[in-house]
Amino acid sequence: MERQFGSFVFLSQSPLLLPPSPENIGRLERLLLHVFFPISAVDAEAAATEAGSIMLRSVASALHFENPERSEEDCSREARRVMDIFLASIPRLKELLSLDAQAGFEGDPAARSVREVVLCYPALRTLVMHRTAHLLFQENIPLVPRMMNEVMHSRTGIDIHPGAKIGESFFIDHGTGVVIGETSVIGNHVKLYQGVTLGALSIPKKGCGVLLEGAKRHPTLEDNVTVYANATILGDITVGHDSIIASSAWIKDDIPPCSMVIMQRPDVKVRPLRMS
Amino acid sequence: MERQFGSFVFLSQSPLLLPPSPENIGRLERLLLHVFFPISAVDAEAAATEAGSIMLRSVASALHFENPERSEEDCSREARRVMDIFLASIPRLKELLSLDAQAGFEGDPAARSVREVVLCYPALRTLVMHRTAHLLFQENIPLVPRMMNEVMHSRTGIDIHPGAKIGESFFIDHGTGVVIGETSVIGNHVKLYQGVTLGALSIPKKGCGVLLEGAKRHPTLEDNVTVYANATILGDITVGHDSIIASSAWIKDDIPPCSMVIMQRPDVKVRPLRMS
Amino acid sequence: MERQFGSFVFLSQSPLLLPPSPENIGRLERLLLHVFFPISAVDAEAAATEAGSIMLRSVASALHFENPERSEEDCSREARRVMDIFLASIPRLKELLSLDAQAGFEGDPAARSVREVVLCYPALRTLVMHRTAHLLFQENIPLVPRMMNEVMHSRTGIDIHPGAKIGESFFIDHGTGVVIGETSVIGNHVKLYQGVTLGALSIPKKGCGVLLEGAKRHPTLEDNVTVYANATILGDITVGHDSIIASSAWIKDDIPPCSMVIMQRPDVKVRPLRMS
Amino acid sequence: MERQFGSFVFLSQSPLLLPPSPENIGRLERLLLHVFFPISAVDAEAAATEAGSIMLRSVASALHFENPERSEEDCSREARRVMDIFLASIPRLKELLSLDAQAGFEGDPAARSVREVVLCYPALRTLVMHRTAHLLFQENIPLVPRMMNEVMHSRTGIDIHPGAKIGESFFIDHGTGVVIGETSVIGNHVKLYQGVTLGALSIPKKGCGVLLEGAKRHPTLEDNVTVYANATILGDITVGHDSIIASSAWIKDDIPPCSMVIMQRPDVKVRPLRMS
Amino acid sequence: MERQFGSFVFLSQSPLLLPPSPENIGRLERLLLHVFFPISAVDAEAAATEAGSIMLRSVASALHFENPERSEEDCSREARRVMDIFLASIPRLKELLSLDAQAGFEGDPAARSVREVVLCYPALRTLVMHRTAHLLFQENIPLVPRMMNEVMHSRTGIDIHPGAKIGESFFIDHGTGVVIGETSVIGNHVKLYQGVTLGALSIPKKGCGVLLEGAKRHPTLEDNVTVYANATILGDITVGHDSIIASSAWIKDDIPPCSMVIMQRPDVKVRPLRMS
Amino acid sequence: MERQFGSFVFLSQSPLLLPPSPENIGRLERLLLHVFFPISAVDAEAAATEAGSIMLRSVASALHFENPERSEEDCSREARRVMDIFLASIPRLKELLSLDAQAGFEGDPAARSVREVVLCYPALRTLVMHRTAHLLFQENIPLVPRMMNEVMHSRTGIDIHPGAKIGESFFIDHGTGVVIGETSVIGNHVKLYQGVTLGALSIPKKGCGVLLEGAKRHPTLEDNVTVYANATILGDITVGHDSIIASSAWIKDDIPPCSMVIMQRPDVKVRPLRMS
Repeated sequence: MERQFGSFVFLSQSPLLLPPSPENIGRLERLLLHVFFPISAVDAEAAATEAGSIMLRSVASALHFENPERSEEDCSREARRVMDIFLASIPRLKELLSLDAQAGFEGDPAARSVREVVLCYPALRTLVMHRTAHLLFQENIPLVPRMMNEVMHSRTGIDIHPGAKIGESFFIDHGTGVVIGETSVIGNHVKLYQGVTLGALSIPKKGCGVLLEGAKRHPTLEDNVTVYANATILGDITVGHDSIIASSAWIKDDIPPCSMVIMQRPDVKVRPLRMS
Repeated sequence: MERQFGSFVFLSQSPLLLPPSPENIGRLERLLLHVFFPISAVDAEAAATEAGSIMLRSVASALHFENPERSEEDCSREARRVMDIFLASIPRLKELLSLDAQAGFEGDPAARSVREVVLCYPALRTLVMHRTAHLLFQENIPLVPRMMNEVMHSRTGIDIHPGAKIGESFFIDHGTGVVIGETSVIGNHVKLYQGVTLGALSIPKKGCGVLLEGAKRHPTLEDNVTVYANATILGDITVGHDSIIASSAWIKDDIPPCSMVIMQRPDVKVRPLRMS
Repeated sequence: MERQFGSFVFLSQSPLLLPPSPENIGRLERLLLHVFFPISAVDAEAAATEAGSIMLRSVASALHFENPERSEEDCSREARRVMDIFLASIPRLKELLSLDAQAGFEGDPAARSVREVVLCYPALRTLVMHRTAHLLFQENIPLVPRMMNEVMHSRTGIDIHPGAKIGESFFIDHGTGVVIGETSVIGNHVKLYQGVTLGALSIPKKGCGVLLEGAKRHPTLEDNVTVYANATILGDITVGHDSIIASSAWIKDDIPPCSMVIMQRPDVKVRPLRMS
Repeated sequence: MERQFGSFVFLSQSPLLLPPSPENIGRLERLLLHVFFPISAVDAEAAATEAGSIMLRSVASALHFENPERSEEDCSREARRVMDIFLASIPRLKELLSLDAQAGFEGDPAARSVREVVLCYPALRTLVMHRTAHLLFQENIPLVPRMMNEVMHSRTGIDIHPGAKIGESFFIDHGTGVVIGETSVIGNHVKLYQGVTLGALSIPKKGCGVLLEGAKRHPTLEDNVTVYANATILGDITVGHDSIIASSAWIKDDIPPCSMVIMQRPDVKVRPLRMS
Repeated sequence: MERQFGSFVFLSQSPLLLPPSPENIGRLERLLLHVFFPISAVDAEAAATEAGSIMLRSVASALHFENPERSEEDCSREARRVMDIFLASIPRLKELLSLDAQAGFEGDPAARSVREVVLCYPALRTLVMHRTAHLLFQENIPLVPRMMNEVMHSRTGIDIHPGAKIGESFFIDHGTGVVIGETSVIGNHVKLYQGVTLGALSIPKKGCGVLLEGAKRHPTLEDNVTVYANATILGDITVGHDSIIASSAWIKDDIPPCSMVIMQRPDVKVRPLRMS
Repeated sequence: MERQFGSFVFLSQSPLLLPPSPENIGRLERLLLHVFFPISAVDAEAAATEAGSIMLRSVASALHFENPERSEEDCSREARRVMDIFLASIPRLKELLSLDAQAGFEGDPAARSVREVVLCYPALRTLVMHRTAHLLFQENIPLVPRMMNEVMHSRTGIDIHPGAKIGESFFIDHGTGVVIGETSVIGNHVKLYQGVTLGALSIPKKGCGVLLEGAKRHPTLEDNVTVYANATILGDITVGHDSIIASSAWIKDDIPPCSMVIMQRPDVKVRPLRMS
C-alpha cells in the first residue's frame, strides 16, 4: 500500500471512514435558505454549489462509513449521482417551499408578510431541510437525512423523520414538540399546531413479532386537514380530507372525510380558593 | 446615480435592502445579559453600546426592507430614535428583570441562588430578549422583534410573541413548549409551567370573516395567577387574580378571581400486566 | 497587595470571581462524545484531557464564585480532586453510555444502526452530558452541572436535572418537552417518550411550610418501566417494575409492579363538517 | 465588601484587572474600515458605536490593569472621555484616510482604482488603525494603542508605533518590514517603500546614561519626501522637504531640502559561471 | 420596480453592489489546498465545488461593483464562465503545484519530506493562491485576484502580484519581504530567498510622462536562476538562464546567461570593543 | 477487519493517517501564553492540560502520518511520553520565558512595562512557541515543531527553525524578516533586530556534494552578542561573546570575542534635486 506523493493523494488508507461532519450538516440550513429564497440569481447559484459540495462530501462519507466494504470510488460516484438529483430538483423544491411560505402567511393571523414567514417561522426553516432530506432518504442515503432531521429538531423542536411524505402548502404553527413519524403521509393544505404527534403504535423490535421492513406504521392525513395543538394520531390510519381534529384529541382509528373530531373535554371545576 | 468615491460612500444604490442579519439578532441575547446583569459598570456600558449598534443596523435594515419606498435617511433616523428609546429604557428593564430573577429563585425549590437563575434558567434568558423586543414592537418596528422572539424560541422552546404584555416578577419553570400569543396580557407575579399555551381561538385570515387589526385574541392573566404544565387557555378571556389553573386544563371562559380550576382527570385504570 | 511580575502571576486580586464560561460548558458535549464514543484511542485520550481542562477551570470558577470567602488555592485543589474523579469514572460512564446506545437501537423501530443512535439521537447526547453532570452534582459542585443540564435542555428540549439518578439502558424517544426532576430515581431498562414529566407536587418555598433540604420530591421508576408520550408522574411515588404507563396519563399515586396503567381517554366525537 | 445581588453587580472585587482582550482589539480593524469607508450612513454609525464599545471596554481595562490603585469608576470615566474624543474625531480621521487612499492610488501604477486601494492595500488598513491608535496614545492610554499597532504589524508586516506623528496623504507600498519608531514625525505627501526603517540610535535603558522620557529619538521627514525600499534613517535627524532617498541608503545625518540622496552602490561583478 | 415575492427574489435593486467578501477570499486558501493536495477524490471534488462557489460569488460581486452599469445577469454569466475555466484548469494547476512542492523539497536542506513542504512552507501556500489568482487576472477579473494576493501577503509576508507569470518548479525559501511585481516573468526552476524584490523603476503616474497601460515594468528571470536574500532587481531587464545573483545585490541591467553576479561587499572592520 | 461497536471503537482502519490539524497547532500560542504567563494557578493548569491534549493528538497524528508502518498504539505511547516531557518542563520553560520578557523590557526604550512586552511584543509570542517546539524537535517529533514554527512565522514575520538552540534572556526587536536556521546556537543575553539572518551557506541537496545529516550549517552567537537590523551571518562560524554587529553587515568568518564589527557604509551622495 504505497503512498504516492507525486499524485498528491496523501493517504492510501481511506480517510472516509469517518461519519459525516455535524458542523457541515448544520451549515446546510442557511445555505438552502439562500438557494430557495435567494437574494439574487448569483447568490442562489453560489449557495447551491456550496450546499451541493457539502452534500457530496457528507453523502460519500455516510455511504463509506456504513458500508466499509464498498470502494471509495463507488461511494463518490453514488454521492455525485445524488448531488445531481438535488441540483435538478431545486426548481421543484423552490416551488413547493414558496407554497409553504404562502400557507404560513395565510395560516397565522399574526404574520405581517410572507417575508416574515421566511425570516422567522421555525416551520419554514424545518421544511427547507426536510424537503431536501426527504430527497436523500428516497435515494437510500444513510445517516445524512436523519442528521438533517435532528439538526432542525434541535433548533426548532419540530421532529420530522426524513421518510415522511408531505404534500403542498404545509404549515405548522409554533411547532415545539411536533413529531411526524417515518411512514406518515400528509396531503396538500394541511396545517398542524404545536405538540401534534403523528406516531406509531408501539411495536417492540425484538419479541414475539417481526417488524416488517417498510411497513406503514404512521398515519395518512388527506388534503385540507387541520390538527390542533397536542393532538395525537397513532398508527396506520387515515384522516379523511377536509377534517378538523380538536386539540389534545387522541386518535387511533380512521376518520371519514369532512369530519369535525371534537373531544369531550374533561370537566373543569372552578372553586373559590381560600387564600392563605 | 454617480458613485462619489471622494466622500467614501461606496454605493449609491441602497444596500439596506437586505433583511436584518440573523447572526446579529442572535448575538443580542448575550449582550443584553451583560447589560442587565453586568459584571461591572464599564462592561454594562460597553455591552449596551454594542447592543445598541446591532439594534441600529437591524432596525434600519428592517424598515428599509419592508418599506423600500422610504428613504435610507428616513429609516436611519427612525432607527436612531428607537435605539435612543432602548438606551433610555435600560434602567427600567433592568429593574424588571431583577424582579424576574428573584421570582425564579422563589418559584423553584431546586434553585440554589439567584445567580443560578441568571446563569441557567431558560425563562430568564427569554425574558431578557422579550422585554427588549416588546419595546421595539410597541414602536412598530417590523421583523426585528419577531426575529428576537424566534431566536429564543429556538434556544429555549419558549415562544413569546413580542406583542405580549408581561407584568412584574414573571416566571416560567422548564418552559419547553410554552406559547404566549401576540395580544396576551399578563399581570404581576404570574407563574407558568412547561407546555402552557395562551392562544387564540382559530380565526381564518381569509374567508367569510375579517380579522380585525389589533383585535385582542389572546387571554388576560391577572396578578398572582399560577398555571400548571400543559394547560391551554384560549381566546380573549380573563383569568382573575390569585387563581390557580391545574395542569392540562383546557379553558375558554373567564375565570373569576381567587379560583382554583381543577380538572376532572380522566380515570386511570391500573391492571396487572401479564408479562410475555 | 503587591503585583509580583517576576513570578508572572499577573493579578493579585482573584480573577476567578467570574462565573463559569457558558461557551466552555457548551463545548463539553462534543468533547464527551469523543471520550465515550472514540474514533481512536489517542482521540479519546486527547478529548478527555481537554474535557478535564474545561472541567477544572469551570469547577474552580464556580466554587470561588459561589464561595468568595474560600481561597483560590482551596477551590483549585477541590476542582482538581473532582477532575480526577471524572477521569477515573470514564470507563464506567463509557460502559453505561454504550448500554444506552444499545437501548436506543432496540427501542426505536426506525433506527437503522447503533451508529445512527450515537450520531443522531438527542437522548444519547443528553445522557452523555447528564451522566457526567450527575457525577459533579454528587460532589456538591455548584452551577456547573446545572449549566450542563441547561445546555442540553436548550439543544434537545430534554430537561434532566443533574440530581436525577438514572440506571442502565435508558432511552428517551424524540424527547422534546421531557422533564426529569432533581430527586427522580430511574431503574434499569426504562424508556420514556416525548413530553413525559417526572415532576414534584408544588411546594411553595416561602409560606406556611418548610422545604426539607434534600427531601425526595420526585418519582421513582423501577426497572423495565415504559412511559408513553406526555404522561405526567408527580411526587415521591413509585412506579413498580415492568409497568407500562399510557400516554397522557396523570399519576400521583404508587403503581404496583407489572401494571398496565390505561387512561380512560375522553370521548372523541366525530361529526360531519359542513364545509363553508 | 458585600455582594449585592439586588443591584445585579455580580462581583464586588474588580474584574477589570484583566488586560484588554486581544480578540476585541483585533476586531477593531474591520469595524474602523466600516466607519471610515462606509457602505451607508447607518452602517457607519453602527460600526462606530460598536468600535466605541470595544474601545470603552479595552481602555477601561487597560487603565485599571496598569493602575490597580485607581478606582473602577475613575477608569470608566476616563474611558468614556476617550471614547467621546474618538467619536468626535471621526470626521477628521475620515478626511485624512480619504487622502491616504487617494495617495495610494496615485502612488502605485498597478492600482486600478481608489476602491482597490481601500480593499487590498496593507498600508491603508494599517493607517486606519494607526490614526485611531495615535489618538489614544496622545491621551496617555496604556497598552491599547500598542496592541492595535501589533495587531497590524502581525497582519501586514508594517510596524508603526502609535506615538508616530503622520501628516496627510501618506502611502507605503508593499510595506513588509517597515518600522516607524515612537517619536518619528512625518510630513504631508510622504511615500515609503517596503523595508524602510525610521529608527533610533541604540540607547541602552540601563547604564551610564539616562533615557530622557519623551526625548525625540527618531527622524523627522518633511513634506513630499520619498524613501525607497530598505533605506534606514536613524536618530533625531531631519530629512528636508521634497527629498528622495535611494533604496538601501543608511542615513544618520540631516538632509537638506530638495536633496537627492544617492547611494554609491557596491560594485557588482558579473562573471561567467561554469556549469557543473 | 416591483418586488415579486412569488418568485422569491427578495430584492429588485441589485444587492451585488457590495465588494467581494474578504472572509470568503480568505477561506479560499484552505479549500484550494484540499483541491490540489487532496486527502481523497471526494474531498478534492467537494473542496473544488466550494471554492468554485466562492469564486462565482466573489467574481460576480467584483464585476458588478466595478461596473455598476453592467446588468447583474451579465456579471453572473461572466462569473460562471470564469468558474468553468478554473474548474477546467485544476488538472494543470495541480501538476504545476506538485512540481513546486518537489522543488521546495529539493531546494531546502532542512526539509524532511515533500509532505513537510505542503504542510509548512509559506511559499507553497502562496503559490496555491497565486496560480489560481493569475488565472482570474488573465481573464480581466477586477479586485478578486488582488485580494487573493493580499490575503497571502498578510499571511506569509510574500507579495506576488497576480499579474506575475511564473514557470514550473518555483521555490521561495523563508519568503518574508519578497515582492514580485505585476509584469514580472519567471522561468522554470527559479529559486528566490527572503527579501528579494522584483520591482519597477519608479514611474510617477501623474506628471510629465504617461504610464503605458500594459507596459512591462518588471524583470524577466529565465530558467534556473537563483536569487539570494535581499537582492533587488529593478526594471524591465532580463536575468539570463542559469545565473546566480548574490544576496543584497542591486541590479538594473540585463545579466547574460550563466552568470554569477557577485557583489563587492562593503568592508567590514572588526575592532576590539572596550567594555564599559 | 471487523467493526466492533460494543467497544465503541468506530473505526478499525486507522483514522490517524491525517496530518496534524493546523487549527489546533494555531491554538497552541494562546494556550501556552496562559501556561507561562498565567492569570491564576488554576488558569495555568487548565491551559496546560488543554495544550497537552492538543500536543498529544498532534504528535500522535504526525508520527503515524510520517510512519504509517508504526502501530497506532505505538504512536500514542510515544505521544504520551512527549506530552509528559512537556508537562515536566513547564517550570523551566516558564523561568526562561520570564527572563526573555525581562530582556525585552530592558532592551527596548519604548517599552513601558514588562506586561507590555508580554501583551504586545511579537518576539515574546514567538519564543513561547519556539521554546516548546524546540522540546519536541529534540525528541525527534516530525512535522509538529515545524508547523509551530510556521504559525509564528506567519503571525510575526519571525522565522525560527525549531532546531535552533537559544540561551537565556533573548530578545528580538520588531522582528519582521528575522530568519534563524536549524543548527544555529545562541548564547545568553543576545539581542537581534529586524531582518537579521542567521543562515547557511548554500549547499545543494543533490549534486556533487553530500549533505551531512546533522552537520552544523548555521552560526553560533556567544553570550551578550547584539546584532543590528538586516545583518546577515552565514555558515558554521562563531561570533565571540560581548560583540556588536553593525546593521546590514554581511559576515562569513569567525568574529573574536569583544569585537565591534563596523561596516564600511557605501558612500551616500547628497545632491540638490531640480524639481520638475
